Amino acid sequence: MRIVPSEEIAGRLVTFQAGLKKLGVHAAILRQNTDLYYFTGTVQDGYLIVPAEGQPIFAVRRDVQRAQQQSPLRPILPLGSLKELPGLVEEAVGVPAPRTLGLELDVLPAATFFFFDEKLLPKDHLVDVGGLIRQIRMVKSSWEISMMREAARISHAVAQAVPDLAREGMGEWELMAELQRVALLNGHLGFSRVRAFNLEIFFGHILSGPEAATPSYADAPTGGAGISPAFGQGSGRRSLKRGDLLSVDTMMNHHGYLNDQTRNFSLGAPHPVLRDTYRLCRDLHQWLRENAKPGAVTGELYDSAVALVEKAGKRRHFMGPEDSGVSFLAHGLGLEVDELPFIARGQKMVLQEGMTLAFEPKWAFPGLGIVGYENTYVVTRDGLDSLNITPEDLVVI
Amino acid sequence: MRIVPSEEIAGRLVTFQAGLKKLGVHAAILRQNTDLYYFTGTVQDGYLIVPAEGQPIFAVRRDVQRAQQQSPLRPILPLGSLKELPGLVEEAVGVPAPRTLGLELDVLPAATFFFFDEKLLPKDHLVDVGGLIRQIRMVKSSWEISMMREAARISHAVAQAVPDLAREGMGEWELMAELQRVALLNGHLGFSRVRAFNLEIFFGHILSGPEAATPSYADAPTGGAGISPAFGQGSGRRSLKRGDLLSVDTMMNHHGYLNDQTRNFSLGAPHPVLRDTYRLCRDLHQWLRENAKPGAVTGELYDSAVALVEKAGKRRHFMGPEDSGVSFLAHGLGLEVDELPFIARGQKMVLQEGMTLAFEPKWAFPGLGIVGYENTYVVTRDGLDSLNITPEDLVVI
Repeated sequence: MRIVPSEEIAGRLVTFQAGLKKLGVHAAILRQNTDLYYFTGTVQDGYLIVPAEGQPIFAVRRDVQRAQQQSPLRPILPLGSLKELPGLVEEAVGVPAPRTLGLELDVLPAATFFFFDEKLLPKDHLVDVGGLIRQIRMVKSSWEISMMREAARISHAVAQAVPDLAREGMGEWELMAELQRVALLNGHLGFSRVRAFNLEIFFGHILSGPEAATPSYADAPTGGAGISPAFGQGSGRRSLKRGDLLSVDTMMNHHGYLNDQTRNFSLGAPHPVLRDTYRLCRDLHQWLRENAKPGAVTGELYDSAVALVEKAGKRRHFMGPEDSGVSFLAHGLGLEVDELPFIARGQKMVLQEGMTLAFEPKWAFPGLGIVGYENTYVVTRDGLDSLNITPEDLVVI
Repeated sequence: MRIVPSEEIAGRLVTFQAGLKKLGVHAAILRQNTDLYYFTGTVQDGYLIVPAEGQPIFAVRRDVQRAQQQSPLRPILPLGSLKELPGLVEEAVGVPAPRTLGLELDVLPAATFFFFDEKLLPKDHLVDVGGLIRQIRMVKSSWEISMMREAARISHAVAQAVPDLAREGMGEWELMAELQRVALLNGHLGFSRVRAFNLEIFFGHILSGPEAATPSYADAPTGGAGISPAFGQGSGRRSLKRGDLLSVDTMMNHHGYLNDQTRNFSLGAPHPVLRDTYRLCRDLHQWLRENAKPGAVTGELYDSAVALVEKAGKRRHFMGPEDSGVSFLAHGLGLEVDELPFIARGQKMVLQEGMTLAFEPKWAFPGLGIVGYENTYVVTRDGLDSLNITPEDLVVI
């Protein structure tokens, strides 16, 4: 099955090669699953060699046949041993050593770098091209946006299932298990890729009631108790109660492309504080839709949004439990959960058309719970366009 | 909730400190989630500083309170900025710079290493302690074995659910979604940790019929088509048919501790080749149970097992599709899917009491499908003891 069109692959490689040239890098050797998928259209046990000029080579340990079926890239060569890699680089670059070679040093383990630097490619100078890749990947093509819209359809199916599934007395974890089933049956790939070391995500945060405001180590506005100290975030053993505000935050994956959505449900009438704060959340979304245009600076958007919250008297419990240190309002996403850009304190990135971001203004009120919803947006000439199709109301069930 | 007993933590740290001393390392700074859980009993955004002698310090960015609830280790100190780390190391070690410090260089990204080496701890010599940690973690305590037995109960619940759920015409992916729900409702943590870069695992491999023999990039005896080139392994869109051999390979997680189990189900009478091969699989399990005793060399066990398969005339399609290059029969596991030891070609590791391993002799017959089951075993004085409680029969449904 071939999913990523060949024009996509070709365009991405051209942009990458221009970046390599600008950096003075003779060739990059890519290894990480997400980057392989982005530049080849398949995830295999292989190495993609991209020279700054000329034809890339996809050297695959296995499975060569699957690689050929799924990737429009040619040539795809079988790789018997890593020792063949320097020769293949030579073939792709056409320049005798020493060379400057790019690796994904932001994700490649240090020990792997040492092996490359000392044993495999000792004559070459190895530099990081992880930043370049992240820069390229942060601007999405219209094909990528269409994939992310499909992922939003899965989020919608999950959110639509909540009123039928959630009931008083049901465990938070139990509800999560049912929603995970709905997600899978609607084509969710089952997991979501991240780039940062140690960042772990499973399904999302399905949290309810006052305990939803429990602080955690997660770099997110919501944490949750989890069911184990081995993974102390997300749904816990708590049972749903009348009056609970239920937050359903899911990360859905359609052919690698992600959609991040949060919707709120109330078991009975919501507490006035949560209801009023929800209104402010809607206002913030509307404000960002209009103001996050190409040219806007992410750090300035952050400051302005926080000022609006301050003005509304809702600063104190904004973005997580107190002292949680969360200083972002939106994160980029695409093939990974933690892509550029971030709408965060001090960020100087300038928005461009085609960037995507998950905006999640949320509040954690001790004793009351969490409130706030999240959409995945694409930056257009006129501002943000939501990829999510689920209505943005607080649903009373 | 505190899960890991304080005696466990204390014992692990003593062993680790002895190892550091032997390596001439003044202190280790641990960061990876699995290692933090192993040595502190909790996963937080923090750094564990372990001096070769004296009191470790757990420096936590967040959440300090959760860390204190879940970890018996003391002191747990709040970490405001990474700049405080060198001072905390100084405090723990009590020796002025320069020092030799250990990091998990097998998993820590190269860019993080450079940051530590050039900016944070420039006077210190940084070495890899990933190997030492893996050596320590490969021998399990009786408490750890009890946790892994609990994980086996989840595997059992999933396997028990198969005959009721699987039916002709049902999609492989659909069955997987139902089994994932059963797993979660039985306490499966939802995901499993791996140590190797790029190694991704989701739930397991629920595969059926001839297409189950599809080769993939997965370093496993079974691959599967998957539903996307973004993750080309595991269950696909195929529908179950009469005569199918169904392989249910699941990786279950109880408070971080794993159980790997495969059971086979046949929709109607199994093909004679698969039925006969299943008998050989039982014989191999029995043989390994008796022969994998403390003192046995893993590479020799591999060779002997392969010789038995050869003698039975079943070598050709053993351990995956032809040319898949899989050269192991068993992998260690515990908190991670890919722990030591490996029963693999050329391995020289000597088995010790308390090691755990998932033994998975499997065959992939083109046009027929895959066959073979898997248990997670612990090495005892008398040989292997299976942690799995699901009967080892081929179940006809």
